[in-house]
Amino acid sequence: MNRTRISETPQAVGQKVLIKGWAQTVRDHGKITFIDVRDHTGIIQCVGVNLTKIPVESAVSLEGTIVARPEKLVNKEIVTGTIEMQIETATVLHAAHEMPFDMGQKELNLELPTLLDWRALTLKHSREQAIFRLQAAVAQGFRESAEEMECMEVFTPTVAASSTEGGAEVFKVQYYEHSAFLIQSPQLYKQITAGAFERVYVISHVYRAEPSVTTRHLSEVVQMDCEFSFLEFPELLDALEHVGTGMIKYAAEMQPDVLKLYGIDHPKVPTKVPRLKLREAQEIIKERTGRDVTKEQDLNPEDEREICAWALEMHDSDFVTITHFPTKKRAFYTMPDPEDPEFSLSFDLLFRGIEISSGSQRIHDYDELVTAITSRNMNPKDFELYLQAFKFGMPPEGGFSFGLERVTMKILELDNVRRASLFPRDMERVDVRLATLQDKA
Amino acid sequence: MNRTRISETPQAVGQKVLIKGWAQTVRDHGKITFIDVRDHTGIIQCVGVNLTKIPVESAVSLEGTIVARPEKLVNKEIVTGTIEMQIETATVLHAAHEMPFDMGQKELNLELPTLLDWRALTLKHSREQAIFRLQAAVAQGFRESAEEMECMEVFTPTVAASSTEGGAEVFKVQYYEHSAFLIQSPQLYKQITAGAFERVYVISHVYRAEPSVTTRHLSEVVQMDCEFSFLEFPELLDALEHVGTGMIKYAAEMQPDVLKLYGIDHPKVPTKVPRLKLREAQEIIKERTGRDVTKEQDLNPEDEREICAWALEMHDSDFVTITHFPTKKRAFYTMPDPEDPEFSLSFDLLFRGIEISSGSQRIHDYDELVTAITSRNMNPKDFELYLQAFKFGMPPEGGFSFGLERVTMKILELDNVRRASLFPRDMERVDVRLATLQDKA
Repeated sequence: MNRTRISETPQAVGQKVLIKGWAQTVRDHGKITFIDVRDHTGIIQCVGVNLTKIPVESAVSLEGTIVARPEKLVNKEIVTGTIEMQIETATVLHAAHEMPFDMGQKELNLELPTLLDWRALTLKHSREQAIFRLQAAVAQGFRESAEEMECMEVFTPTVAASSTEGGAEVFKVQYYEHSAFLIQSPQLYKQITAGAFERVYVISHVYRAEPSVTTRHLSEVVQMDCEFSFLEFPELLDALEHVGTGMIKYAAEMQPDVLKLYGIDHPKVPTKVPRLKLREAQEIIKERTGRDVTKEQDLNPEDEREICAWALEMHDSDFVTITHFPTKKRAFYTMPDPEDPEFSLSFDLLFRGIEISSGSQRIHDYDELVTAITSRNMNPKDFELYLQAFKFGMPPEGGFSFGLERVTMKILELDNVRRASLFPRDMERVDVRLATLQDKA
Repeated sequence: MNRTRISETPQAVGQKVLIKGWAQTVRDHGKITFIDVRDHTGIIQCVGVNLTKIPVESAVSLEGTIVARPEKLVNKEIVTGTIEMQIETATVLHAAHEMPFDMGQKELNLELPTLLDWRALTLKHSREQAIFRLQAAVAQGFRESAEEMECMEVFTPTVAASSTEGGAEVFKVQYYEHSAFLIQSPQLYKQITAGAFERVYVISHVYRAEPSVTTRHLSEVVQMDCEFSFLEFPELLDALEHVGTGMIKYAAEMQPDVLKLYGIDHPKVPTKVPRLKLREAQEIIKERTGRDVTKEQDLNPEDEREICAWALEMHDSDFVTITHFPTKKRAFYTMPDPEDPEFSLSFDLLFRGIEISSGSQRIHDYDELVTAITSRNMNPKDFELYLQAFKFGMPPEGGFSFGLERVTMKILELDNVRRASLFPRDMERVDVRLATLQDKA
């Protein structure tokens, strides 16, 4: 017999079907057993008589007849709530061990370290799964929005010969007889490819050897980047806002059930995302709160929330773009504003209180770029291939990036970015707690 | 004036337009200059009078009028061959330095090391670009085919606490106070997630510290993986063939011009890909060639070509699936064939003479898996999180993977996999030749 997907069972009333999935809950009532079975398409209640004991979360194969439930037993919360399966044959494909905690609750009430210690099991919980269904949609939304902007996908390396963005927080790799480094960003490679293919996007792992443990940082994350040649600053902001809002709108529209499960409203995407220079944003914050932040070099988290509150009130927008951050606070390749070089043609995109993207117009003049590298005490020799691109027709160009885990975390208002990573890496954990490895060594 | 894409210029005859792109060739005929300008949508011939000198490959912005060419000057080889642009204003956005070699030929006749030494420049050549346009389509074809098989995209880590597949060819990472390793495959993580999400796909970088330089190996490549729960072996082969043929068919259909440029025929995809056990394939090879390979543990490259020739002759197929390789020759997680455990429920998919995918049904019983790990002299303690998945309802499952660069190389019949990697890494090169870094150190 061919397998029927659980989502298709409501169309099979009166028919005998075969389903396969996991026994999510098993309730024994004497001779009668109720089993909620989950596959990748849904969940269904199954009823059996005189079944052999089935441990919770076992993989099962069930044959039986789909029957309509009596009106009073209809469960409106699930797609298959109007029907149930009367089990004729139950086969345990793989019996689960005893659960170390209750997997049957609507929410797993576990401390984060426990959730991660048991990751292979806790990923089976529907509320945890929902996070990664949304995440897949965010990535797809990014790709589709980038392709709408005529970007081509490129695959850039993650092992580089030198620490390419400055800073000490890089992981060293023993690369044959040499030292190499894990990239902090595909930045330099995407710029080179934008100089060839004009418009590119990259989804790449990036690595930060953050020496601290915070709720917002991971040592390895997925970064989604775009880079555009022949764009001037205002067009670049258009591209940023198209991809940023498009990606989140797509994810929300593809996964409405996930938003509902987490009690999240659909994002408010305005026709035109409001844009403010940093100094303008700071004036607004001062007016609204009385706090004088107008001399600060950046927005702090409180400022980000405040300016997002303003965007929502004044523009009915969950998004706001902030531009013109101080040049010295941004990466070396950021183009200073020709009209006021103390500030740069840089920007952040904020969504519901936090920054989800950064980017800039880049310096595309070779000499200017070498000066920028030198002035930050870096060595142009470490940028040989990158600088080569700026000798052979590099147009005005710019781009931006998003962190996949951070966007996922923010959409669902998760309290820790680790919850938005299938297998989070940080100072303390690589699958297992590193302290336990220390003990073993 | 808004920019017009070059592909749209044939619809703009008689109109004044603005185009932006690279001056691919510049031919001075006294007062008159012909410039072929390339953007990401196409190439157009532009004609100017008394222009200032424009260096080849400079980024330019041109305003002018689109005019029809006289019949006898029509170039049927390009989309814009019926028109040209009469330049009114030419602006050099970024002047290229002098070319180190002739970029104007249809083919770049460079040795591979030179091609890669000048990667930022050589990627601007249309024949090199074509490789990566096809590559983007291969990746997209993989994703679409995997989604047709109901797979969800997952993002798995590349830094792991132990060398997860055995073998010495791993890169070591200094991870805070610990040692970690770059993954050789997302294998263990995709199996864990298949135990939760049922059907998954992953596009991940993988790393092999190959101590030799060959035309077929790179130190960092992009691997495309699928993994399916609740599938038995024949269904798994269906999935393999669906994704493998679907991906290549998609790429060929999306990029017919690239195939044409490289003189490649469209792939022959049969309704049913022929399937042979290794021993059956070897018998066929023996019959066809007289070479007795029937005791060998694997197909060598000559055998792969021969069995593909058979598939083409007998089944009009560019694909053939070979199954049941010797158990001891495959990875520890491979399920032995219950009917003949010396051979395994493993497979390779061959395309036009080479293997492009490997995979297998996996061992899903916990004790059996621990025994398999131990019998290969590995330590189950290094597989803690992986083994956890096999305690809590792991269904029969299996999967397969493709190498993006290898598939790209094979479709276009490139002579070296480095040509199918934007920035290839090997023993001798990370962007620049490592020997030069040695000198600097």
